[in-house]
Amino acid sequence: MKYKIGLIGCGTVGQGLLEILDKKADDLKRDFGFEARVVAITDKIKGTLLAPGGIDIKKVLAILGAGKTLDAYKPGKKPVAMHPLEVIDVCGADIIAELTYTNIKTGEPATSYIKSALLNGIHVATSNKGPAALHYKELREIARKKKVQFRIEGTVMSGTPVFTLFESGFAGNAVKEIKGILNGTTNFILSKMELDDMGYGDALALAQKLGYAEADPTADVGGFDALAKVVILSNVILGGDIRPSDITPQGITAITKQMVVDAKKEGYRYKLIAGTKREGARITAGVAPQKLPLSDPLAGVMGAQNALTFDMDLLGKVTIQGPGAGKLETGDAILQDILAIHRDLR
Amino acid sequence: MKYKIGLIGCGTVGQGLLEILDKKADDLKRDFGFEARVVAITDKIKGTLLAPGGIDIKKVLAILGAGKTLDAYKPGKKPVAMHPLEVIDVCGADIIAELTYTNIKTGEPATSYIKSALLNGIHVATSNKGPAALHYKELREIARKKKVQFRIEGTVMSGTPVFTLFESGFAGNAVKEIKGILNGTTNFILSKMELDDMGYGDALALAQKLGYAEADPTADVGGFDALAKVVILSNVILGGDIRPSDITPQGITAITKQMVVDAKKEGYRYKLIAGTKREGARITAGVAPQKLPLSDPLAGVMGAQNALTFDMDLLGKVTIQGPGAGKLETGDAILQDILAIHRDLR
Repeated sequence: MKYKIGLIGCGTVGQGLLEILDKKADDLKRDFGFEARVVAITDKIKGTLLAPGGIDIKKVLAILGAGKTLDAYKPGKKPVAMHPLEVIDVCGADIIAELTYTNIKTGEPATSYIKSALLNGIHVATSNKGPAALHYKELREIARKKKVQFRIEGTVMSGTPVFTLFESGFAGNAVKEIKGILNGTTNFILSKMELDDMGYGDALALAQKLGYAEADPTADVGGFDALAKVVILSNVILGGDIRPSDITPQGITAITKQMVVDAKKEGYRYKLIAGTKREGARITAGVAPQKLPLSDPLAGVMGAQNALTFDMDLLGKVTIQGPGAGKLETGDAILQDILAIHRDLR
Repeated sequence: MKYKIGLIGCGTVGQGLLEILDKKADDLKRDFGFEARVVAITDKIKGTLLAPGGIDIKKVLAILGAGKTLDAYKPGKKPVAMHPLEVIDVCGADIIAELTYTNIKTGEPATSYIKSALLNGIHVATSNKGPAALHYKELREIARKKKVQFRIEGTVMSGTPVFTLFESGFAGNAVKEIKGILNGTTNFILSKMELDDMGYGDALALAQKLGYAEADPTADVGGFDALAKVVILSNVILGGDIRPSDITPQGITAITKQMVVDAKKEGYRYKLIAGTKREGARITAGVAPQKLPLSDPLAGVMGAQNALTFDMDLLGKVTIQGPGAGKLETGDAILQDILAIHRDLR
């Protein structure tokens, strides 16, 4: 089957998705009978490109790679000046990949884009934590009514399968508790403090230098990024209905090198653990540093990796560990969602 | 949708599946629109039961739990004397769960049962390593021609998702290498040798006492069980065409307590690693003890747990850790296969 795909947002993840769609086109056709045509790309900074007949992905990647805007795609032509909502309306896409920046306070403007696409009967795949953490139930309900899918694999652990794993691999299990390491930056900092004997400040500076942490690292080190993800897991997998504002996360800023060293001597290791648990109708979720025994599967997760342990009635504990960020890794999360939509329609 | 299910073999795994189908009937109907009616059970020791209208699962579990045979289900009636191939022919099942004992040399009689079911247009789910390790390509080809599914989730790591994970979660990735801990018994023995300071003989005796190891432990400690699983992974996931007889496994019988202690001092840990790798058209697979650095995600896997690391082009390394055996755990693997068949037909 052939799908028309529109990209709202074309930063790192969008370009990762384009790279994969280009490089894997033959494999996807052969293995899954899946063919994609990118019909629209719109980005706040890089401009807008519409091509109902299909965009030349290699050309777009070369233009963006050279630091130019999408206006360079059709030289001499007047740049397209169109609001993303208008692009969604007119581009004729079967699937919208919503890849704009995350606003965890309001979920906007991404939520409006997603809502508009779903109401137009267009499937949506997103890696944006804002809409998923704040408006999942509403958006899923619109999708259900419109008989389309709203998929969010990339919002937690990038392309490491979480929601697909739950849907297919754990089918039949009741999940009692989920806990894990959902922020690679803080895990990198804690790993450096223990393995390379660095202080918190030096480890943070290194994380910033390597591009793991932002200039303002609050979202990561304050636990807010992990919190958004654990809220998504609570609502999507445990069927809860909580908001990030319901929980005060505890970050890693109070963890000193001495604490890390002392824990190590006792056979423990500090990890920033995000967890959520169902007891009857009640969901208890939180984010806080924990001293784990080295026998815990999460204790061995070092560097920028992420991991998640599901505790279930039939299978007991199953842990998945993998990347939590990255261009191709998150681009692949969007591809997984698109292929899941394809599997369902096939 | 409603499915008629037949069980060929009703030992631990079969009874685990029945328990799950009974306990989860309402959940499966509500969450997936899935309903099952068990129409046949046949077992070498426990006898045969046919009931086109559906078998009372609770009653069967009570009978088998009390150590009786299936003849006790219809007291006063003449026991059914029927060959499993005949049961497959007449029972009218849509799905056969093939759960007889594993013969890793010939794959029989399971392979004949599976072939007959597939040729009759019946889907098959099995946890039997014999047919999967020896005849996967042939059986998959019959299934393809007959437009039914041949599924094997339970053959590797019981219900911890391996094949479902590959199909759905890793879609779009090329898998370069798979390696892991695929035998819980040997991992239990190695863990006991390190953590509880036991010699190989004592640790093996404890594993036997706890029911992890057989009276003749060769299949486990000689690496043959892990070998069968790595052959399955090679053929199913890497598209290879190898046989267990192509590889000589190296087990853990030569690992001494001193070696374990010395490795620990150097920051390493012995694990029985089963691995397979694709380089061009060539598959290299093997089973041998390896000294892993403690930073390897597989080094932290202790006790009877299993784990598998997939190395892929887009996602890099993803590791899944979970149970590798057990009644409900393997019963759930069969349920996952059945639900995958349902997803495809829905």
